[in-house]
Formats: sequence, structure tokens, C-alpha cells
Amino acid sequence: MSTPAVKDLLGVLAYGELVAFERIAADASMAPTLADKTALAAMADAEFRHYQQVSAYLSARGTDPIEAMEPFVEVLNNFHDNLAPRDWLEGLLKAYVGDGIAADFYREISVHLDESTSQLVNDVLADVGQSEFAVARLREAIELDPKVAGRLALWGRRMMGEMISQASIVATSRPALQQLFAHAATNPEAVTQLSGLVNRLTVAHSRRMDALGLAS
Amino acid sequence: MSTPAVKDLLGVLAYGELVAFERIAADASMAPTLADKTALAAMADAEFRHYQQVSAYLSARGTDPIEAMEPFVEVLNNFHDNLAPRDWLEGLLKAYVGDGIAADFYREISVHLDESTSQLVNDVLADVGQSEFAVARLREAIELDPKVAGRLALWGRRMMGEMISQASIVATSRPALQQLFAHAATNPEAVTQLSGLVNRLTVAHSRRMDALGLAS
Repeated sequence: MSTPAVKDLLGVLAYGELVAFERIAADASMAPTLADKTALAAMADAEFRHYQQVSAYLSARGTDPIEAMEPFVEVLNNFHDNLAPRDWLEGLLKAYVGDGIAADFYREISVHLDESTSQLVNDVLADVGQSEFAVARLREAIELDPKVAGRLALWGRRMMGEMISQASIVATSRPALQQLFAHAATNPEAVTQLSGLVNRLTVAHSRRMDALGLAS
Repeated sequence: MSTPAVKDLLGVLAYGELVAFERIAADASMAPTLADKTALAAMADAEFRHYQQVSAYLSARGTDPIEAMEPFVEVLNNFHDNLAPRDWLEGLLKAYVGDGIAADFYREISVHLDESTSQLVNDVLADVGQSEFAVARLREAIELDPKVAGRLALWGRRMMGEMISQASIVATSRPALQQLFAHAATNPEAVTQLSGLVNRLTVAHSRRMDALGLAS
């Protein structure tokens, strides 16, 4: 049986991968070329395999993955509903930036987990080369039409904002997770640790946006 | 290098699997429960793995899968656009019945292919148990609310009609495929063979609808 914190963390990770799979696969329908469609579909498929890994890990430890995911369905659906991409480029940036922020976040957290869970989280988040495709295609599009940059920069900021806001909702509603984030709620450094985490995620996000030539 | 007929047949099969993956994954967002969502997502994932198999087979034989799929993009997109499910049950019936008709069709055709291609087609179409889930859930829903049956029966008929109409478009625009369907265009039995194929597909479709308690 997993601890409440591990169950919550893997639950939100599993559902995050499942819903990312579903949304990215749907966004593939906006691809301008068949080659683009197959590349985005492969990104979606990678999310599904990650979902399966986390789900199998939970099952093997006697935790029902459905039960573990359930508390996070609404908040993650809201996140995606609020950030429905209007076109191919927004979809691509969402897949790339969303994956990046999520990976940074889980990697930070995984340090405080037992070794086998930490190993799972790192395996699941390993970039299997899909982000290169997204970066190359986004750069191309921005070079071709610099006007695109302003719109995508705004889109990237909206994503970071939406992620922080939904993550706060999750943190306040799940005490086990909150403790994990802040090591211990009674720790006087807890607030500083949390804002330190948000700062580090924001810096990493800016670096990704910079690499695309986008203001963050 | 594949023959024109094999290239066309595997092209339409590969794109059919890719677009089915994309649409079924999107339809999973209509699932009433998380368990249903994971089951439909697994069906979508199976379609993606089939797409990968066919795509790898074409590449290994020096045929560009993108080039092979290209001629079938419009007709298959039209098929799915004309048959966008309005709810979870329509999505589920579409996945089940669509897969069934496609499998029957490719199995009929595979008899006329070289052995290795025929083997690939049969591997790709092997039902890995997902249809049991669809049948069980559809039966449950029909029992719970018999009014659903009329709507789903109509939906099933629309699907069969749309498939025949899109398949005719494909057949008339791709001479290599047409020859495969009819063995040889000059064969006096060609027309009879084609209508025989359509009849057999219709009978198998009726059997699937019957098993669900739906009029076909």
C-alpha cells in the first residue's frame, strides 16, 4: 500500500498523463501536414505509455489507480478546458511547455519520495526526444511569420499562470501532497520552500520560452 | 519496394489506424467514468500501435509511409467528420462497429496479397479483447434505457452507409486497389465479386448489431 502522499502524487501524475494523451491526440487533428500529425500522435502515445507505467506501479502496490486518479479529474479537466488551443501552433507549444513544467515540478518533488517511486517518476518523465520536434517546428513558424511570436508568448504566459493556479487548488485540497511540497506544514521554512519551488519552475519556463525566442 | 496495390492498401490501413487513434482518444473525453475513459484510451492506443506496425512495414520495404497514406487523408477525414459521435455511446458503437467492418474488409482483401503482407494485415487486425468492453457497456446502456436502442440502430446504419460510400470513392480513384478488390478489372466476374464482398460485409455488420440487440 502506498502512503497517502505517494498515492496522491502518482494519482495526479497518472491522470495528468492520461488526459494529456487524450488532448494531444485530439490536437493532432489540427496538424498542417501528415508528418506533423504522426509526430504529435507519437507524443500523445508516449503520454499513454507513461500513464500505463504509473497505473501498473500503483496496482502492483495494491492501490487502485482509478481511485488514486479520481480526486484530480476535475482540476486537470478544468486546466485543459481553460487552455484549449485554437490552432496547431498553440497545441504544439502547449504540449512542449506543459510537458516541460510538469517534468520540472515532478522532478523537484521526487527528491522527497522513496527511491523506487522517485525512480518511476524520473523514468516516466524522461524526454524521449519528442520535444526536439516541437522546438524545431515552433522556431520555423516564428521565423516564417514573426507576428506569431507575440501570440505564442501570451499563450505561454497563460499556461504558466493556469498551472500555478490549478496547482494551488490541488495543494490546498490534498493535505498529504501539501506536506510533501513543504516537507512539513509546521516547518517555519515551508512558505519559503513553496515560493522557492514556484520561482525555480518559473525560471525554467522562461528558459524554454527564451530558447524559442519568445518573451515569458 | 511494394507493389502499387500493396502500397495503397497499407497506406489506407495505416492512415485509417492513425485517424481512428486520434478520434477515439478524443472521444474518450466523453466517458461517463474514469474506468470507461481508461478503457477507451486503451482502444485508441491499440490503434496507434497498429499504425506503427504498418508504417514500419512500409518503411522497411523502402516505401515512405507518409506518401502511402497521403491519398487517403481526405476521404478518411470526411468519413470521421460526417460521423462525429454526439455522445459516449455513439463513440463507443463507432469504435466497435467501425473496427469490425474494417477488420472484415481487410481480411477479405488480405487473401489476395503476398504472404508477408497478408500476415501483417491479420496481426494488425487481431482483436486484443477491446471489443468485449464495448459490447458489455453498450448492452448495459441499452438494457438500462431501451429508448437508446433506436438511436444507436440508426447510428449503426449510418456508419455502414458512410463506409460503403467512402470505400466506393477510394475504389474509383485508386485503380491499383480496384484491381485488387475485383482481382482484375477485365474479369467478367468483377462486378459480382465486388457486390459479393459488400454483401458479406453487410451480413457480418448485421450480426454485430444483432448481438447488441440492435436492428441493422
